[in-house]
Amino acid sequence: MESFFQVKKPDEVFKIVEQFGPSGEEAVPFEASLDRVLSRDVVAEEDLPEFSRSAMDGYALRAKDTFGAGESLPAMVEVCGEVLMGQESDLVVDEGRAARISTGGMLPEGANGVVMVEYCNLLDETTLEVSRAISPLENVIQRGDDLRQGETVLEKGHRCRPQDLGLLAGLGILQVSVYKRPKIGIISTGDEIVSIDEIPRPGQVRDINRYTLEALCRQAGGEPVFIGLSPDDFESLRGMVERGLAQADMLWISGGSSVGIRDLTLKVFEVFPGFELLVHGISISPGKPTIIGRSGLKPIIGLPGHAASALVVAKIFLTPLILRLSGYAGFPGEFQARVEARLARNIESASGREDYVRVKLVEREGGLTAEPVLGKSGLISTLVEGNGLIRIDMNTEGLYEGQDIEVRLF
Amino acid sequence: MESFFQVKKPDEVFKIVEQFGPSGEEAVPFEASLDRVLSRDVVAEEDLPEFSRSAMDGYALRAKDTFGAGESLPAMVEVCGEVLMGQESDLVVDEGRAARISTGGMLPEGANGVVMVEYCNLLDETTLEVSRAISPLENVIQRGDDLRQGETVLEKGHRCRPQDLGLLAGLGILQVSVYKRPKIGIISTGDEIVSIDEIPRPGQVRDINRYTLEALCRQAGGEPVFIGLSPDDFESLRGMVERGLAQADMLWISGGSSVGIRDLTLKVFEVFPGFELLVHGISISPGKPTIIGRSGLKPIIGLPGHAASALVVAKIFLTPLILRLSGYAGFPGEFQARVEARLARNIESASGREDYVRVKLVEREGGLTAEPVLGKSGLISTLVEGNGLIRIDMNTEGLYEGQDIEVRLF
Repeated sequence: MESFFQVKKPDEVFKIVEQFGPSGEEAVPFEASLDRVLSRDVVAEEDLPEFSRSAMDGYALRAKDTFGAGESLPAMVEVCGEVLMGQESDLVVDEGRAARISTGGMLPEGANGVVMVEYCNLLDETTLEVSRAISPLENVIQRGDDLRQGETVLEKGHRCRPQDLGLLAGLGILQVSVYKRPKIGIISTGDEIVSIDEIPRPGQVRDINRYTLEALCRQAGGEPVFIGLSPDDFESLRGMVERGLAQADMLWISGGSSVGIRDLTLKVFEVFPGFELLVHGISISPGKPTIIGRSGLKPIIGLPGHAASALVVAKIFLTPLILRLSGYAGFPGEFQARVEARLARNIESASGREDYVRVKLVEREGGLTAEPVLGKSGLISTLVEGNGLIRIDMNTEGLYEGQDIEVRLF
Repeated sequence: MESFFQVKKPDEVFKIVEQFGPSGEEAVPFEASLDRVLSRDVVAEEDLPEFSRSAMDGYALRAKDTFGAGESLPAMVEVCGEVLMGQESDLVVDEGRAARISTGGMLPEGANGVVMVEYCNLLDETTLEVSRAISPLENVIQRGDDLRQGETVLEKGHRCRPQDLGLLAGLGILQVSVYKRPKIGIISTGDEIVSIDEIPRPGQVRDINRYTLEALCRQAGGEPVFIGLSPDDFESLRGMVERGLAQADMLWISGGSSVGIRDLTLKVFEVFPGFELLVHGISISPGKPTIIGRSGLKPIIGLPGHAASALVVAKIFLTPLILRLSGYAGFPGEFQARVEARLARNIESASGREDYVRVKLVEREGGLTAEPVLGKSGLISTLVEGNGLIRIDMNTEGLYEGQDIEVRLF
């Protein structure tokens, strides 16, 4: 593999990924902001709630009127009416009085607390026994408790979750600014690859990488744009790369993992003005023959041709890259479900490179067991049979049967 | 809370969730099957690959011709040509001969192995020194190695991932049968709730639950159908439930968490023929006042009105319910990213109920610290400020500062 002249360690590649950032912003209705990344801070323009509310079903009153009350010596107050939901009550709760209130009801004038219905006993239509003392503001959600006008609700770089949409709805913020979804141009290469519409002749195989990479791209929040399927021909590939750079924010070219063809891919990249080679080989398995460069602000990636290798590299390194291009500033781990499992047998690993081993998780004796998937590493079926990846660190020579390991579900 | 007459433990609720299943199937193009659940086994109709291929760049030859070869005593063979990519070669590799081949190239007749280019030295145009012995089939992907005709490729109940789409493409399976996405009817209730198009008057608040629940539903693979916003009125709610049951596969009604209104929700459910009450209260916090029932095959859920409580209940119990209705048969954990963190301070918990505590994850000294989010539990802002939930078991009285805990990212 002497042709790789800038082999990087995984950690170095993750650092390089951090060079890149989002490419633009757009305004969207808040309902469409799920999983989108905010490009500006969102500030509350009003208090939430805009009035003090009861947090319980019960009676609104002055806390002072309950002081000293208990099971054996209840306080007695006079019920002056009921607060209706969704309305501002004209009741005034003076000393010695109480108003029936439901959860979410607006606290009437004069009252400063709510005693739960469980501690109340109505003796007749207007006479109420209260068997528990409350402190001021007990069971009350005050105006602005959720958020105060002028407060930053959500920060730039935040990826919107269901609860964030709820908060935006609650505040009446019906439009937000988000970063554009990065467009990922995808090119498949190889004289032996045919489109899925064709019947492959002997020596030919259908294009797999287009579909695995498009799907991964979508899962990570990118928008795939298929540029085309190129034979191993300089002019054809150059034309597609040019078109891809014009249409997309990042370019993924899979195939060309043989030495000669790999050189072709790199030669094509180098034609573009300002192209800078950042990574020429990564010390991992599978996926060593990976190229990462940039043309201006746009990353250009050369992925291995083997379907499994291309997908593992994309999963490990290009998911975080899509997050960078999306403007995301949080925990990348959010997008990676992990489980603990017990390893079913020893795995050897060459030191000096990081290994990603495919495993199949099996429920056994109340726990999960991870069985390494056998089979040649380039085969897509190994990823289909497996449902997780385990990472074996560079400086480790292997893992042992029975060891507890972390499995990334995949 | 004497009004709850069938309070269930979380484990009992999860068992009840397992009663439900998918509602129908449809055929979709394989490209649209990402995150969909297969309703039938998929069987390979051909071998993948359909011919034996080289797994490396090198020379195809008869393994026997390399036996005994080494650095000090290389084997000598005659190069008879080159295998072109994507073509069936007419070369025949007889004894003592070899053909140049690239990764993915079709193995020519006569050859049964490939020696890597690194171990080859071309002395002149046709004389090749081979400095390493290979065994038969070394560096060869045989016909059917990935999959054999007639093999089950993917099983019913499997949720399609990027690699699965790749395999389908590779096999030319351009259409698959999947379960229908469950339609979830969503109804918000409460005299105090107004639509987000309106300016709330004193005593009124905007509808939050509609948006949090619709978003959660989408994340879990369901298709939300907003039925409407109902006042706390029997006839209005009955009409919407009727419409919801006609349009959707499951119904979520949020609001009505006050005792009187809660009874109204249940009374409305009971109007429907064959309605069966399964859960009337769950021993968790937040979210106790939750109702689960069924009308025929369709689950009907009454969620608390507090935005945070409704969303936590939906996250914990209704995500797996959506998976059941989607026909998913795998690990539910796949949809739940978790991280380990150190707890920043003690948390007390009442025994006899399961607590879901909101925490904020902060990176500190190379590790993650989970800081419990303070604030009244009904407030949506506590879920917005936090980015995870920790579960405190029924039989635990609390967790200690410094303890390592599992955080579900949320």
